[in-house]
Amino acid sequence: MNQKPNVYQDLFLNHLSLDCVVFGFHDSQLKVLLLRMKRTKDWALPGGFVKPDETFEVAASRVLKERTGLGDIFLKQFKIFSDPLRSQNNPIVSDLEEEKDKGCIEWFHQRFISVGFYALVDFSKAEPTPDFFSDQCSWKALDEVDALMLDHTQILTKALETLRLQLNYQPIGYNLLPDKFTMPELQKLYETILGKELDRRNFQRRMLSYGILNKLEERKTGGAHKSPFLYEFNLGNYQKALQVGLYGGW
Amino acid sequence: MNQKPNVYQDLFLNHLSLDCVVFGFHDSQLKVLLLRMKRTKDWALPGGFVKPDETFEVAASRVLKERTGLGDIFLKQFKIFSDPLRSQNNPIVSDLEEEKDKGCIEWFHQRFISVGFYALVDFSKAEPTPDFFSDQCSWKALDEVDALMLDHTQILTKALETLRLQLNYQPIGYNLLPDKFTMPELQKLYETILGKELDRRNFQRRMLSYGILNKLEERKTGGAHKSPFLYEFNLGNYQKALQVGLYGGW
Repeated sequence: MNQKPNVYQDLFLNHLSLDCVVFGFHDSQLKVLLLRMKRTKDWALPGGFVKPDETFEVAASRVLKERTGLGDIFLKQFKIFSDPLRSQNNPIVSDLEEEKDKGCIEWFHQRFISVGFYALVDFSKAEPTPDFFSDQCSWKALDEVDALMLDHTQILTKALETLRLQLNYQPIGYNLLPDKFTMPELQKLYETILGKELDRRNFQRRMLSYGILNKLEERKTGGAHKSPFLYEFNLGNYQKALQVGLYGGW
Repeated sequence: MNQKPNVYQDLFLNHLSLDCVVFGFHDSQLKVLLLRMKRTKDWALPGGFVKPDETFEVAASRVLKERTGLGDIFLKQFKIFSDPLRSQNNPIVSDLEEEKDKGCIEWFHQRFISVGFYALVDFSKAEPTPDFFSDQCSWKALDEVDALMLDHTQILTKALETLRLQLNYQPIGYNLLPDKFTMPELQKLYETILGKELDRRNFQRRMLSYGILNKLEERKTGGAHKSPFLYEFNLGNYQKALQVGLYGGW
């Protein structure tokens, strides 16, 4: 949404949009990237529209490149949101009414069917950048997120549910953790996604049983307590587990 | 697609469609429901369009009710197909050119973005019914399916991949098998989805370890060999495994 509003109807496919739930892990918290609308100050997921020569995947990559500066992001379609009333009362319209931009108001009055994507990004490398309608683009910890505009709370909730379910049978972490990490850091990532505490020994036993971790000789230094060992992902096994699941195929 | 073509543009949302991969299990084979186009005799997946007051889920249920007579079908979105060129050379257009139906030709010349659904249905209860453009609606065993029209082969392949991956961590069979079934019948279902043979003892051990089966006192009668025991799904555990995966949650 970097373009000026009055050219939307020429640039993009009608009544189709995409919304991205961008997750990053920082400070032992799962965070999500949000935009603040200029006038209404509503918070929203980053999103955009689809050009006539784009697939949805290409459009989503373009939008995320604009919002984070990052290319080559781990990005996945997870659901279509097609409630006929979902795009009513779009706060963007109230912004536009002040500008008396009729063509654009009509565009945003359409029924939009939105494709939900979720993305896992390296928090430290992203450079959050607002779009045309927003004055702020920032990371929010999940427990700090209040009601979002339109059905974006529902889209965020569904993305999180998808991620939680995948924790039961697919590996996660490669796009969210630094190259080397400790078992407590990995556990913290799981706990923040699941929203609950896990038993330390059970967690370690289950994680090691998957064969997706290499234990390194090094230990993490600088902490107050006994220095914990560092791990890295075994990328071959990690990729295979992404394909067939953590428990193997038939 | 029961309506006459010239009313499409008034009834449905532009450039959006859905395609359904309907799986049924019969005669030890995984079968898929296909339509044969009236004039070109191309085979296609059942599909349709979305009305202004429908969600995609409601539209897909309506289409499947029209094609099979069945309501309350196990139906799941699995992917959007949005290649900008995917709906070029639609064989339906050549049918319509003979009828000189200009409004409708324009409709089918649009770029369609299609939402793929897959459905698992009870083969014995479905009543295959052609739509306006087809003269036949029939079940085809997977290994009998030749090239389908447009990108429908790709949609079918992707649905099958999704199903295969889910076999690694989710239960399957409740919508495809009779209420009571034998272990060889269940194994045959897995083999036909996976397209390969499985070891009988490993299969039985792994299936029983999931806790989703109740072994019955009855045996299947009428076969030439020793009568095998009958099983039924333990629906409570089956539903739970659908939610958190066969290996449990964190």
